[in-house]
Amino acid sequence: MIGAGRLSLNQATVKHLTLPQAVDLCVRHEVPAIGLWRDRVAECGLARSAAAVRAAGLSVSSLCRGGFFTHADPGARAAALADNRAAIEEAAELRAEALILVSGGLAPGSRDAALARRMIADAIAELVPLAQRLGVRLGIESLHPMFCADRCVLSRLGDAVDMALLFPADVAGVVIDTYHVWWDSRLPEDIARAHGRIVSYQLCDWILPLPADTLLGRGHLGDGVIDFRAISALVLAAGYRGYAEVEIFNQEIWDAPPDDTAATVRRRFAELLG
Amino acid sequence: MIGAGRLSLNQATVKHLTLPQAVDLCVRHEVPAIGLWRDRVAECGLARSAAAVRAAGLSVSSLCRGGFFTHADPGARAAALADNRAAIEEAAELRAEALILVSGGLAPGSRDAALARRMIADAIAELVPLAQRLGVRLGIESLHPMFCADRCVLSRLGDAVDMALLFPADVAGVVIDTYHVWWDSRLPEDIARAHGRIVSYQLCDWILPLPADTLLGRGHLGDGVIDFRAISALVLAAGYRGYAEVEIFNQEIWDAPPDDTAATVRRRFAELLG
Repeated sequence: MIGAGRLSLNQATVKHLTLPQAVDLCVRHEVPAIGLWRDRVAECGLARSAAAVRAAGLSVSSLCRGGFFTHADPGARAAALADNRAAIEEAAELRAEALILVSGGLAPGSRDAALARRMIADAIAELVPLAQRLGVRLGIESLHPMFCADRCVLSRLGDAVDMALLFPADVAGVVIDTYHVWWDSRLPEDIARAHGRIVSYQLCDWILPLPADTLLGRGHLGDGVIDFRAISALVLAAGYRGYAEVEIFNQEIWDAPPDDTAATVRRRFAELLG
Repeated sequence: MIGAGRLSLNQATVKHLTLPQAVDLCVRHEVPAIGLWRDRVAECGLARSAAAVRAAGLSVSSLCRGGFFTHADPGARAAALADNRAAIEEAAELRAEALILVSGGLAPGSRDAALARRMIADAIAELVPLAQRLGVRLGIESLHPMFCADRCVLSRLGDAVDMALLFPADVAGVVIDTYHVWWDSRLPEDIARAHGRIVSYQLCDWILPLPADTLLGRGHLGDGVIDFRAISALVLAAGYRGYAEVEIFNQEIWDAPPDDTAATVRRRFAELLG
């Protein structure tokens, strides 16, 4: 099993906290790592953010996020690459285990998912040298197929693995987020194929019914249908030894007192994965 | 291309019409086939429904639907099988090209999708002899992964093909519904694997944003992101020569005058697939 020493809290789970507040929350609840978001890092300042997590003794399990590579317009494409280069530099400064990439949906006006996937491969190829030089691992994430059109045309873990395998292992890996991949009958085979390539493991549950905003239909571990023990065993068998990061987008959880949320995160993690 | 002679209208697209009204609508708009729903058939009476479609010269491209096989409770399982046997008899009486099966989500209280898939295989095995005797083809449908937990654990076309291949080709096939499968990077390979097994081809578009009720986020052909020409070419290449059935669940379309809906269905079909 993964064990409490590998728990990380993604700061999106306590969306209303600033970075220093989220860092303090992790310290108070003995959570050893944190997943950061770029908007909160920018608000606090990059150097101050890096200093705050180091002073607190926290590891940074991930930085969210880069990506959105699928543009036919050259200007939009160049802007996306520039933003991703900045994200790589931020990830290096923060010593993040991975920079999470949400790669983008169909290009505007296009119905060609294969074309969008080629755009993603081309963009990552351009980012690899900088990431390699700065020692940042790019975490290619597959998103649930309901986000294929508008957020990420990599819809199965297998798509993300195929993409990562185009690039060197020291720089390109995959993110496994239980919420996005749990339903896939090929998940065991694709996790095995990801051996040595898993750079981030994110956890939240699939709850029913889906809410009106499908981005927010995520629950505390144990509140839904996902078998975390089974998936975690596969992830460990594929050689992953990093943090397991709880990242929950849910309006009710955002509205709850953050200390309650952190306590629930810890308790459920211990019950289901301890 | 498929051609207007292969157009079918699923009566769920004009949800508020009775079966005789939907039959009349097809005749008025020169749509040569109709997809029927069991509740509307029951309301009209099975023999009268069969007589109405024959008198109108319509083919019945499908009957919706059987399935929901995933029960651990023996009583619930027996009830599901009895209901599916009744559905097979209705499909035979209506001379439907296929009985559509929505196989069921996770069993109540279970998180084991593989177990649910075994329950589905066991149930279909029990139905095969009756279907074979009555000449009814079972259409195993994969549903979009967002319905995996509560409606169908067969989430990719490949899952449905794997299931169909367990049984004789004359009785077990797959349904390809563009809405459920369009996002899958493995779709071309899985359609090819389904050669000779495709018993129903259903069409509607994936529109954005997803509505609050995710069951209803479907659009007229051309209003969304699906490349119907590309998918239809694959379906034809896999030997399918049956009807292409337009089935749209959408509150606005349900609230529109049915003659407008039928006219739009015909026009879009001709533009995109004619």
